[in-house]
Amino acid sequence: MLLCDIGNTSVHFYDGKKDTKSLCEGFDFSSIDEEVFYINVHPEYESQLATLENWHDLRPFINWDKYYETMGIDRVVCCEAIEEGIIIDAGSAITVDIVKSGQFEGGFIYPGMVNMQKTFGRLSSRLDLSFNLELDLDKMPKNSTDAISYGFLRTLKSEVERHHGPIYITGGDAKALAFLFDKAQIKEHLIFDGMQKILERKC
Amino acid sequence: MLLCDIGNTSVHFYDGKKDTKSLCEGFDFSSIDEEVFYINVHPEYESQLATLENWHDLRPFINWDKYYETMGIDRVVCCEAIEEGIIIDAGSAITVDIVKSGQFEGGFIYPGMVNMQKTFGRLSSRLDLSFNLELDLDKMPKNSTDAISYGFLRTLKSEVERHHGPIYITGGDAKALAFLFDKAQIKEHLIFDGMQKILERKC
Repeated sequence: MLLCDIGNTSVHFYDGKKDTKSLCEGFDFSSIDEEVFYINVHPEYESQLATLENWHDLRPFINWDKYYETMGIDRVVCCEAIEEGIIIDAGSAITVDIVKSGQFEGGFIYPGMVNMQKTFGRLSSRLDLSFNLELDLDKMPKNSTDAISYGFLRTLKSEVERHHGPIYITGGDAKALAFLFDKAQIKEHLIFDGMQKILERKC
Repeated sequence: MLLCDIGNTSVHFYDGKKDTKSLCEGFDFSSIDEEVFYINVHPEYESQLATLENWHDLRPFINWDKYYETMGIDRVVCCEAIEEGIIIDAGSAITVDIVKSGQFEGGFIYPGMVNMQKTFGRLSSRLDLSFNLELDLDKMPKNSTDAISYGFLRTLKSEVERHHGPIYITGGDAKALAFLFDKAQIKEHLIFDGMQKILERKC
């Protein structure tokens, strides 16, 4: 049995031990013989996946009353993985979601690291700089690199720290951004933990 | 006597009572007969301005030891306007600078409202939305518009509120963003207040 997260750019499999990633573009879903439980963000793949008997969509097994209609299924599934805490999913966007006693309390969206860097670069050639990921977060900046790094990082940290509970950080930039939060737990497979929980509840 | 702020896109004059704005592009600086004290962010205008006897650059009258070399002169001049507080200049970028007992303590740069909205729009067509400027800032969002609005606005508010002192807000989006901060003072002419102070010190 495989779990599969079909995201914006990649098809991400997990067999409970190791994970593999392929590009969505050109991926042949029928090449997989095992039973697959998946989530999918591409509406255009839905009809094809529905014809494959070994591919099972987890969407119908989610209690959507707890969430909102246009919320990304990846965010929802990560929320299902925990009972209590703050989930930071740091990818092309950064989503921050709060779960209390198994209930989704709400969440916000912030640009991801690469996209925020591009935004500053577009603002001015003088701000077309890489972020300083060793920034002293307790000191007001006095140079351009630190000024944009602080603008991106410190604002996010200050808001996240207003909330209470354990912090779980996942997504491609999880390791790079974990330094922002004391005791943040890096959870690379949080989405698969959530899928597993949904499956267990279903059975 | 006129004060003039030559910014990225516009030439902004102030006579102590009213202000006028023209586009930089095609502006004829020699068409002004009065004495003008100016700041300028365009290196390419410098040689032309230097030939005009009635145009006086305020840059040499600033004590740059208090600031950093690549800091925008508009930020520096706004800092010169106050003795104590937090200055938020909300334009194409949002700059947040802290002044204590007349000393620049540091500052950061954050994307401006229009640019941040464009960043979300580029991330996903589902996030190509206008910000909700009547957002309840004390409630975690449960829809896409509020999720990006909170990501833009609440993170900024949370960081600014960690600092103490009166808040002065200036720039094109000052009025739209003032609701973020209790008792923020809108100061449309803060840059001209700073220029005036520099001039008074010089004389």
